Amino acid sequence: MNLNYNRIIELLEGQPEQYVSGEALSRELNISRTAVWKQMKKLESQGYRIEASRRLGYRLMGKPSKLTLPELLVKLEGTTLVRSIKLLDSVDSTQNIAQQMAEEGAPEGTLVIADQQTNGRGRLGRSWVSPAGKGVWMSLVLRPGIPLQFAPQLTLLTAVALCRALKSVVPLEIGIKWPNDLLIGGKKISGILLESTAEDERLRYVIAGVGVSVNLEPEDYPKELLDVATSLLIAGGEHIDRGAVVAAFIRQLEHLYAVYQREGFGPIRTLWEALSVTLHKPTKLYAPTEVFEGTPIGLDERGALLVEKADGSVVPVFSAEMRFPEANSGG
Amino acid sequence: MNLNYNRIIELLEGQPEQYVSGEALSRELNISRTAVWKQMKKLESQGYRIEASRRLGYRLMGKPSKLTLPELLVKLEGTTLVRSIKLLDSVDSTQNIAQQMAEEGAPEGTLVIADQQTNGRGRLGRSWVSPAGKGVWMSLVLRPGIPLQFAPQLTLLTAVALCRALKSVVPLEIGIKWPNDLLIGGKKISGILLESTAEDERLRYVIAGVGVSVNLEPEDYPKELLDVATSLLIAGGEHIDRGAVVAAFIRQLEHLYAVYQREGFGPIRTLWEALSVTLHKPTKLYAPTEVFEGTPIGLDERGALLVEKADGSVVPVFSAEMRFPEANSGG
Repeated sequence: MNLNYNRIIELLEGQPEQYVSGEALSRELNISRTAVWKQMKKLESQGYRIEASRRLGYRLMGKPSKLTLPELLVKLEGTTLVRSIKLLDSVDSTQNIAQQMAEEGAPEGTLVIADQQTNGRGRLGRSWVSPAGKGVWMSLVLRPGIPLQFAPQLTLLTAVALCRALKSVVPLEIGIKWPNDLLIGGKKISGILLESTAEDERLRYVIAGVGVSVNLEPEDYPKELLDVATSLLIAGGEHIDRGAVVAAFIRQLEHLYAVYQREGFGPIRTLWEALSVTLHKPTKLYAPTEVFEGTPIGLDERGALLVEKADGSVVPVFSAEMRFPEANSGG
Repeated sequence: MNLNYNRIIELLEGQPEQYVSGEALSRELNISRTAVWKQMKKLESQGYRIEASRRLGYRLMGKPSKLTLPELLVKLEGTTLVRSIKLLDSVDSTQNIAQQMAEEGAPEGTLVIADQQTNGRGRLGRSWVSPAGKGVWMSLVLRPGIPLQFAPQLTLLTAVALCRALKSVVPLEIGIKWPNDLLIGGKKISGILLESTAEDERLRYVIAGVGVSVNLEPEDYPKELLDVATSLLIAGGEHIDRGAVVAAFIRQLEHLYAVYQREGFGPIRTLWEALSVTLHKPTKLYAPTEVFEGTPIGLDERGALLVEKADGSVVPVFSAEMRFPEANSGG
C-alpha cells in the first residue's frame, strides 16, 4: 500500500495541475481503478488537494503544507516565550506528549506541534477532529508562578490570545463563547484545553492545548458536526498558512501573559468581555450539580462568569456548559 | 540472605522476650556475628522491635503490626467514603499508584495504603521518611464536584480531618501549621499533599496523600531531621495501632467532606482556625515572588491566609512557605 501511495504522489507531482487518467494510474500501479480512487481519498486525508474528474482523471492542486522548524523560527523571531519546539508527524495527542515532557522537567515554553492527531482531546473528554496537514494542533508547557486558584484565568487569557491571533490572520468575525471556545457565525473554529497539575495550592505546570481547524474541508468532518463546527477555509474561502497561525498565537500569548503577570487579571478580563459573543444573551447553563437559566453579564475578578438570573440576582458561575438555542458546542 | 532473615525471625519468635545469644545465632546460621548483627538491623528497619545486649544477645520485643484488610474493614464499619482499599507492602509512593489508578478511572474513595514507601513524596518535592510498618502512608482518590478555584480548600479540610483524627487517637497537643502540616511541640508529625488535576476550570480528580509518623523511633530519622520531626511514639511514648489512625482519619474526612459539600468552606475555616498553632504569631513568609514578614490572623473565604503587615494592611496569601524562628518545616 505504501509503495502505491508514494508512487501515486510521484506520478501526480510529475504533472502538476494536469490530469493523470485513472486508467493510466491503474495500469502503472497494477491495481484496480477502485483501489486508485481509495489511494486518492487517502492522499486527501493527508492534506493533498486533488481534483477528480470522471472523464479526465485526477490532478494535484496542492500539497500538504508541512510545518518546518526553520519556517517557524523565522516567524517567531523576536519572541521569547517559546524555548523549544518539537515538531511531530502523527501523535495520539499533543497534550499527552507535552504532559509527559513537563513531568520529566521540560521548562516553560516547551512547544509540541503535530501534523496530525489520532486521538485529539477536547473539553470533557470529547474527541477532536485533527486530520493531517490541515490544522494547528499544539500544546505549550507553562509554569506560571501563580497560585492554583488563579489557573482558570489562564484559560480565559488563552482564549483572548487565540481570538486576537486568528483575527490578525483572517478578516473574519471571531468571538469567544465562555469559557474558551472560539466561534465564527455560531460554529466552533477552535478548541482550547488547559490541563493543570497542582500540589496543594501550588500550580506545578499547565499544558495549554490549542486546536485550530485551519484548512479543513467539509468532508473532513463527520456529518453531524457540520452544523456546529467550521474551519478558517470553510468560513473564509482561503487556504491559510498554518505557520502564520502558530506564530500569531504565540505572539499574542506572550504579550498577554506578560501583561497578566505584571498587572493581574484586570486587563485580560476587559479584553475577554470585549471579544465575547455570549454576553447579554439569555442562555441555559449546565453546571455539575444544577441546570439553570440566566443572562451572562461579564466576568468577576476571579474569572467566574457573572450570570443574572430572572429574579435579578447575579451569581458567579465557576464551571458550566453553556447552551444557546442556536448553537451547540460540538467538536 | 532471605533464608537467614526468615530463620532469625523463627529463632527469635521461638523464645519471645527471651534473649538468644549472638553466638548461638551465628552457629545456627553459619554466618559471622557481624552478619547476625546486620540481619538484626534489617529486622528493625522492617518494624521488628529487638533489644540487643552485648552479654545476653538479642530478644524480640515486638513484631511489625501489619495492616490487614479484614481489620481495616471492621474499623471502617459504617463509613461510606472508602469504596476500595489496595494494601501494598512496599511501593515507591502511594501517590503515584493512586494517581495512575485515577487516570485509569478509579472512582472516588479508592484508597491506597502501603506498609513502606521507598520514595515517599512531601511538599515541594521533598522526600518523606516512610520505613516499613511504622507509619501510615496512604493516598485517597477524591472526585469532588467543585471548581478548580476551590481545590486549595480541600488541602485545609484534610489538615483539619487529620488533626482531629490524631487527637482522637493520642492525648497529645497537635496543631496545624499553615497550610497543612501537623505539629507536636513545633515538630512535624505528619505530611499532607493534595495533588490536583484539572481540565480548564474543572477539577478531574484530587489525590489526597497523607503520611503519619506513627511508631517511628529516633533511629529512623536522619540526624538532621530530629530537631524538626517527631512521631506519635516519640512524642507520646506509646506504640499506636496504625489501623486506628487510618480509620480515625477516614471517619473525620468523611464527616468534614460532607459538611463542606453541604455548607461550603465556612465551617471548615472555623475549625481550621481553632486548630492552627501559627495564627497571631509574627512570621516570615517565602512566597514564589517575594519574602515578607507579617502576622497571620486567619483565613479568608477562599482559603487564602490573611496576613497583617507591619503597616496594618491585611493581604491574602495564596501560596508561601512559613518559617518561624523556633521551627522549620523538614520532613
